[in-house]
Amino acid sequence: MPKADKVLVLFNMNEEQKKRLEAINKDANYSYEDPDAVTQEKINESDVILGSVAPAAVAGSRNLKWLQLWSAGSDRFQQLGNFPEGAILTNGTGGYGLTISEHTIAVIIMLKRKLHLHYLDQLECKWGSGDGEVSSIYGSKILIIGLVDLGTEFAKKAKAMGAYIIGVRRSNKPAQEFVDEVHTVDKLDELLPRADVITLSVPDTDATKHLLDKKRLGMLKENVIIVNVGRGGAIDTEALTEALEEKRIGGAALDVTDPEPLPSDHKLWTLPNVLITPHSSGNHSLPETYRRLIEIAIENYEAYTNDKPMRNIVDFKRQY
Amino acid sequence: MPKADKVLVLFNMNEEQKKRLEAINKDANYSYEDPDAVTQEKINESDVILGSVAPAAVAGSRNLKWLQLWSAGSDRFQQLGNFPEGAILTNGTGGYGLTISEHTIAVIIMLKRKLHLHYLDQLECKWGSGDGEVSSIYGSKILIIGLVDLGTEFAKKAKAMGAYIIGVRRSNKPAQEFVDEVHTVDKLDELLPRADVITLSVPDTDATKHLLDKKRLGMLKENVIIVNVGRGGAIDTEALTEALEEKRIGGAALDVTDPEPLPSDHKLWTLPNVLITPHSSGNHSLPETYRRLIEIAIENYEAYTNDKPMRNIVDFKRQY
Repeated sequence: MPKADKVLVLFNMNEEQKKRLEAINKDANYSYEDPDAVTQEKINESDVILGSVAPAAVAGSRNLKWLQLWSAGSDRFQQLGNFPEGAILTNGTGGYGLTISEHTIAVIIMLKRKLHLHYLDQLECKWGSGDGEVSSIYGSKILIIGLVDLGTEFAKKAKAMGAYIIGVRRSNKPAQEFVDEVHTVDKLDELLPRADVITLSVPDTDATKHLLDKKRLGMLKENVIIVNVGRGGAIDTEALTEALEEKRIGGAALDVTDPEPLPSDHKLWTLPNVLITPHSSGNHSLPETYRRLIEIAIENYEAYTNDKPMRNIVDFKRQY
Repeated sequence: MPKADKVLVLFNMNEEQKKRLEAINKDANYSYEDPDAVTQEKINESDVILGSVAPAAVAGSRNLKWLQLWSAGSDRFQQLGNFPEGAILTNGTGGYGLTISEHTIAVIIMLKRKLHLHYLDQLECKWGSGDGEVSSIYGSKILIIGLVDLGTEFAKKAKAMGAYIIGVRRSNKPAQEFVDEVHTVDKLDELLPRADVITLSVPDTDATKHLLDKKRLGMLKENVIIVNVGRGGAIDTEALTEALEEKRIGGAALDVTDPEPLPSDHKLWTLPNVLITPHSSGNHSLPETYRRLIEIAIENYEAYTNDKPMRNIVDFKRQY
């Protein structure tokens, strides 16, 4: 790789992080910019960009060799389809497992214990009944569709809380010790009827479009809870709404929807067995999330500079 | 112990549980009754009662030798103060750790991620901002006041989620491996300023009355979250309300209050950094909770019958 790279850093790095970054290549030129204020000119002249920019801002770049996103998803670059040829795109997979797994644990328990309905009572200053039916993560069979970064961090926590973990992923790698079973995605129809909880953390691709469709939603246990923290398109929204409305499934916690944002007149907003959050589960404001994303950028910069294998390279053919 | 005991069972045991119970003493006489329909006469003639009855129902009993409650608390028997002399009272400690620890994990994350405020947006069919500040259990210092049954089950889960655990208890026993530090209650003033989260699971006694008073609430970190799943009297409600109103602390999740139920005109209901649940965290409806309580009753019946040490004996002097 050329040694005199112009490196544009949009992450808000502290001095120690900058020092480690710059030590990797002393001949490069480093600019630290506010992502909301960076100029198009600065983007155009950069060889390397660490941090997210809009697809249109780099589409015409003749200098770009590598863009490190801070998002885990790269949908917007897939849709545009004109990321500069030959340039490398890497994503932020690995940064979000912590924050999204905590979100996932909480929304499952909220639905299982109906904590949101207690909150409705609270809004009316009402000491309601404490005797309603509850269930637990302990003893639940949890089907994790997308056992990569965040699926794995969630699996570890759910296992520690006494769940039985069934993981589903694309490739047939052996399971970690906290995963009770691991399967490839072609086994999904056999696995779905066994699940008490289903979590989805899959990217938005042609292969994952309506992965949970009407037919599959019909195979589920009556009390199953579905959590989607990946991309909204993985579930057929209308079929899900119908199943929830008719109480054929227990509940759903949706941090992503299709369409997104969910239109204000959509039925889903009003169902008592639904929790909707505004794509906030992978919130950056958690310092540990941001720290992890910077570590991924630094680690990848070291690999890039020394011609070693980089992590999180986006494959435009498989669409993530 | 006499072999021809009349044993009144108010737990809804299945056949297998009944069989195991009766095998312990084949000479005893067993009656299985619905706790809501049992007659005073039946209570009066019983030597052993497995399951909770009102204090007044046993106060005058001349036959009672042992009452196994299903509640962890025995406050109502303490207040009445006229449990038959010489009879043994045991409580349900050990049955509630699972269910209350899941509740505790959820309410902490709800407050840290402001999930209840997202639910307010949902009630208005509004896709709000996902950028609000969040924090995590990971990396939090959690001070567990009352490291017995439920404190311990919670400690284990919180540790698995990456928290640093500081336990406080009455006696100076060594800590389990998932507790980073353990202290006796006289060290509380040194520990309080270090905590990011404080959980209270202490019984209602003279010693725990207003354990968190105005002075101690003044020692806390600005973002601290307080969770009370023990008894309401352990916190000075008015001082807590003031601290929450003035945002001198981060938030509180109260499953117990003082007074309880909380009056409908109380300020606490309306504060955005508060979650109130109606003493529901130790909800019986969880099958595993009920199963554990039955196991405690059977185990204690075996000890009682064979003159071995029973567990969970209420000490009226220490008030729990």
